[in-house]
Amino acid sequence: MIKAGIVGGTGYTGAELLRLLAVHPDVEVTVITSRKEAGNSVSGLYPGLRGKMELAYSQPDDDVLAACDLVFFATPNGIAMNSVPKLMDKGVKVVDLAADFRLASASDWKQWYGIDHACPDLLAEAVYGLPEMNRESIKSAQLVANPGCYPTAAQLGLLPLMENGLVEGNVIIDAKSGVSGAGREAKVASLLCEVSESFKAYGVPGHRHLPEIRQGLGRMPLEGVQCFKGELVFVPHLVPMIRGIHATSYVSVNDHSIDLQGMYENRFSHEPFVDVLPAGSHPETRSVKSCNQCRISVHRPRGGNTVVILSVIDNLVKGAAGQAIQNMNIMCGLKETAGLDAPALMP
Amino acid sequence: MIKAGIVGGTGYTGAELLRLLAVHPDVEVTVITSRKEAGNSVSGLYPGLRGKMELAYSQPDDDVLAACDLVFFATPNGIAMNSVPKLMDKGVKVVDLAADFRLASASDWKQWYGIDHACPDLLAEAVYGLPEMNRESIKSAQLVANPGCYPTAAQLGLLPLMENGLVEGNVIIDAKSGVSGAGREAKVASLLCEVSESFKAYGVPGHRHLPEIRQGLGRMPLEGVQCFKGELVFVPHLVPMIRGIHATSYVSVNDHSIDLQGMYENRFSHEPFVDVLPAGSHPETRSVKSCNQCRISVHRPRGGNTVVILSVIDNLVKGAAGQAIQNMNIMCGLKETAGLDAPALMP
Amino acid sequence: MIKAGIVGGTGYTGAELLRLLAVHPDVEVTVITSRKEAGNSVSGLYPGLRGKMELAYSQPDDDVLAACDLVFFATPNGIAMNSVPKLMDKGVKVVDLAADFRLASASDWKQWYGIDHACPDLLAEAVYGLPEMNRESIKSAQLVANPGCYPTAAQLGLLPLMENGLVEGNVIIDAKSGVSGAGREAKVASLLCEVSESFKAYGVPGHRHLPEIRQGLGRMPLEGVQCFKGELVFVPHLVPMIRGIHATSYVSVNDHSIDLQGMYENRFSHEPFVDVLPAGSHPETRSVKSCNQCRISVHRPRGGNTVVILSVIDNLVKGAAGQAIQNMNIMCGLKETAGLDAPALMP
Amino acid sequence: MIKAGIVGGTGYTGAELLRLLAVHPDVEVTVITSRKEAGNSVSGLYPGLRGKMELAYSQPDDDVLAACDLVFFATPNGIAMNSVPKLMDKGVKVVDLAADFRLASASDWKQWYGIDHACPDLLAEAVYGLPEMNRESIKSAQLVANPGCYPTAAQLGLLPLMENGLVEGNVIIDAKSGVSGAGREAKVASLLCEVSESFKAYGVPGHRHLPEIRQGLGRMPLEGVQCFKGELVFVPHLVPMIRGIHATSYVSVNDHSIDLQGMYENRFSHEPFVDVLPAGSHPETRSVKSCNQCRISVHRPRGGNTVVILSVIDNLVKGAAGQAIQNMNIMCGLKETAGLDAPALMP
Repeated sequence: MIKAGIVGGTGYTGAELLRLLAVHPDVEVTVITSRKEAGNSVSGLYPGLRGKMELAYSQPDDDVLAACDLVFFATPNGIAMNSVPKLMDKGVKVVDLAADFRLASASDWKQWYGIDHACPDLLAEAVYGLPEMNRESIKSAQLVANPGCYPTAAQLGLLPLMENGLVEGNVIIDAKSGVSGAGREAKVASLLCEVSESFKAYGVPGHRHLPEIRQGLGRMPLEGVQCFKGELVFVPHLVPMIRGIHATSYVSVNDHSIDLQGMYENRFSHEPFVDVLPAGSHPETRSVKSCNQCRISVHRPRGGNTVVILSVIDNLVKGAAGQAIQNMNIMCGLKETAGLDAPALMP
Repeated sequence: MIKAGIVGGTGYTGAELLRLLAVHPDVEVTVITSRKEAGNSVSGLYPGLRGKMELAYSQPDDDVLAACDLVFFATPNGIAMNSVPKLMDKGVKVVDLAADFRLASASDWKQWYGIDHACPDLLAEAVYGLPEMNRESIKSAQLVANPGCYPTAAQLGLLPLMENGLVEGNVIIDAKSGVSGAGREAKVASLLCEVSESFKAYGVPGHRHLPEIRQGLGRMPLEGVQCFKGELVFVPHLVPMIRGIHATSYVSVNDHSIDLQGMYENRFSHEPFVDVLPAGSHPETRSVKSCNQCRISVHRPRGGNTVVILSVIDNLVKGAAGQAIQNMNIMCGLKETAGLDAPALMP
Repeated sequence: MIKAGIVGGTGYTGAELLRLLAVHPDVEVTVITSRKEAGNSVSGLYPGLRGKMELAYSQPDDDVLAACDLVFFATPNGIAMNSVPKLMDKGVKVVDLAADFRLASASDWKQWYGIDHACPDLLAEAVYGLPEMNRESIKSAQLVANPGCYPTAAQLGLLPLMENGLVEGNVIIDAKSGVSGAGREAKVASLLCEVSESFKAYGVPGHRHLPEIRQGLGRMPLEGVQCFKGELVFVPHLVPMIRGIHATSYVSVNDHSIDLQGMYENRFSHEPFVDVLPAGSHPETRSVKSCNQCRISVHRPRGGNTVVILSVIDNLVKGAAGQAIQNMNIMCGLKETAGLDAPALMP
Repeated sequence: MIKAGIVGGTGYTGAELLRLLAVHPDVEVTVITSRKEAGNSVSGLYPGLRGKMELAYSQPDDDVLAACDLVFFATPNGIAMNSVPKLMDKGVKVVDLAADFRLASASDWKQWYGIDHACPDLLAEAVYGLPEMNRESIKSAQLVANPGCYPTAAQLGLLPLMENGLVEGNVIIDAKSGVSGAGREAKVASLLCEVSESFKAYGVPGHRHLPEIRQGLGRMPLEGVQCFKGELVFVPHLVPMIRGIHATSYVSVNDHSIDLQGMYENRFSHEPFVDVLPAGSHPETRSVKSCNQCRISVHRPRGGNTVVILSVIDNLVKGAAGQAIQNMNIMCGLKETAGLDAPALMP
């Protein structure tokens, strides 16, 4: 049994790690930390865990965490980078679900997150944990930066086109997320009365997932293929629902001879968590609710130059805790799908 | 591996059987029937099952069904009773998720469901599938009538008081259900625009679950305990959410010397799917979303004579498909919790 | 034109006053105060008011408020009692939407709200602003205590029975409210991800609206009619929707000769804001969304002793701002329905 | 008083006409037809109208309708075109809320709606009822084609740029609608359990509002300005809420010297129902819930070539019944804002 620790497990991604690990056949959660909830049971905060995961929050303690095989950081941005070096020195594997190790450039980090990076030297070592792109590197990684929720949905949708350098001009990603993406923090903007029965865009001038997506697109082209050089526009929106991300991506593909459907199906045919729907489909976010799947449809409306890619994930699973477990499975030599087998909850 | 069949699997309870059985370690779904969808894949109708449960609907065929060890009927009321006798003759076990075998009296059936019962002789043989009351009988039953969703929540909440004959006067059950209880039928009254952002009672003059609950209460008193003789009032309400039932039950208990909390905890201490919350708690329906748990709190507000019992279930799981699988596990000698281990989905 | 002021207008009841007063033909809002938002426009906080109500929040200033004909307090409990005496001395009429003047007894106030009352002498002068009970007193009142949301729905539903002393035994009020009843405060318990897709009871051991309802029931019996002496049980629940209250009240009425439907229709036939639905109906909260109506149905299920009354209001309108305006209309000699004519928003 | 008739008033747009006309100072609804509901009261179907609009549905009768000054058609597509010519012959003004007269070309109509047009000669006479573009023509029109909901939101957002020929390359409209846009028809796809807690695109291969928007964009350029010649991509999405449309439009504007904010503010400064938000804003659909406003923000993210326009309306008001009343007001010489003064419902 792998011994796993969770740092900062009071938020929704922490709770989701607990929910999924409760039924993982090869992992035991041995410690979960929270300064605020230390001493309280996880099932007191999340009654859905009663009888399934009986564990109490404890104060963060490096020695205790160092006894784990792998530690998940489910902390706010800017926390993990202060503790990760010590854990790594002790040989512990780390999956950071926050943004601390996602951007390769420390100056990009500072520009978008507003603080100096605490361990810029680790940025080169950290592997960006999108298994569909980086599976081999993840296998041998000690530190994995778990991708953001929007970047996961958007990059998986664009991967086949980008790898083959087929995108001309700009890329527009019109993305929509459920409210759990905003976390469990007490703020007026996330109250039911403020967000239900309404829809809005936010962060149009600039969202932190923009540089992460741009970096990801830059790494996709296969050898010899020209890199994407256009403008990247990313507009996130808030959907009045708990879970789910839907990315609608628009790219110009002037080559009309390509069999897009076939290209997408082939690219993902061996991926356990990416599902290309039949031609003409429209994926619903609920078709991935509670599970680690990403479902994708690709359209070329009315035979024009614009290709529209629809990709959906559950932001708390493939967009956070599920992908983190997928990364853990790969890092620890477990079956990649272990603990991630359950179908989506419908309705 | 148990071979299970599902008759009428296009509705929400059928889909929920598929979702849960997809990860059941000891069961294989070998056939699922639907006249309307025959030939189509279950994952076409429920894309959340793609890659997890690849099976096609077929025309109902008694010979095919007879090859199953156990058949679930997830049909509308009044269908199963026409097919069950034949299957039973061939030795197949049956769990009926509809109401056909819930009422012991054929005249009650006719009064509440409007048609003559097709096999009234089987009513005495059918075991009412509430394991917390009838576990021993279920073990040897060939035909189990899976309880209704409201009756499950209400009866579990009242069981300890009724067994001990502590209830004086009337019993009022003010129950609330999510919209999935109304099924997947195309009707105006279940449209999002008709039921979201609204709340209402329905069926106040009389709801089909009333006689089922009354029958259940009558069977609860332990030997030597006097039966409940008061008026039973049952008022269901519709909650603008997908899943969940909350029963708020009001009874008069004149004996103030009873330790209600202790009594409830003791009664259910060995029940894997009934969870009595700490004193002073208020169970939320989301704490059982997607799982087979029933959570209960018992209150005596301001030390008065009225005891208030709060009980919650997921209407599609403990209120339908999950309890059906629990019954199957018991009938087939499997571990009672097999396939029903996953924690609730939160948030 | 009546000059109206609003103290503490940043919450939902304050915003609702602005929405309704924006189209009131006889009233001008001349001042709205908020320490926190002073200097900011109301339409900045509530963009729905842009172009309809252009006014800025200001610091509370007694002299400015004293220039109003009437001042609404839309403040948290315990604030108005500190300012009301000064305003009343200057001849200003006051409608308090908080609880400060609802309970006639200062000791009850302290018991339920936890602080000493700042002006207990005014409690006797304050008129409880339920026009259907107290219209004549409201006409000449200088200080009106606007009823709580639950008490409005519950009392209107019980009024005809109580006036005539028909209730035997206990009264059970199982009430359900939308989330806006919890206000616009930033707290985890009101986040969309915490309350949507879930249902729960709360405050079962004791809720502040219990003594208010009990006091109201005690005042209802007509001359010569015996007062209600049973136990009052009040259990509130939280519904995953923004607006609306549904009270389901259970009372024993042993006299079966009464024409309940006729009694209810007669009692409210001249009430502009109480609507008794046809026999057999079930009122939906959405049928009163955004409007000042209360709709009521009365049932005697299966001819038993228990009478079930269903009453619905919009908690922010008839349960708060709308009733406050109704009271203002009565106090100022305006048409009682002025500014309150619009039908409900459906769907 | 204008005498208005409504043909086909059982759906949501019909109900919304009734809600708004109930408080219109200059209009009396004298007849409302429905074959299915003939004889029943409108408030039976829509209880929110009880006491506010007491009228019964009647069988369609040309003579009765001909006694109206103006008739609204709130019928499914393809119905109005069969009755409008007769009414026009009798001098009645008509506003058609369906699509029958929106497309100028009868062959376009046939291509997108699948049937021959019944009165193609009237297509040239019908005025497209977007007052912000065609106010002068509407004043003298006898027949107004009320725009579609998506086209209203999209066109208002693009109008200033298109009028001045500033758009280079393609136009992408990523639009999102609440579920009421799908009408009140009983269909599985609109059930709460199918659409709540989910988000999806639909109609990506081609939606009927595409040719309507394309036609509109073609008419926008001012004299001497070159027409838009790029590709138009329109992708609608379904949002789990009742009301509201949010259009996110992406266009390339290479000229960086333009003051976009100023241009938008100037263009709409005299428009009573178009509100340009301050720079940097993100309009929420709830800011226009229940009212006839369109709110717009314009962004140029990170100083790039792509301009992003966010525009929101209530699909049932400015996207249907409200705009129809606005058109009626203009056609009948009433104040354009009559009956459309109420602020949005928030929360």
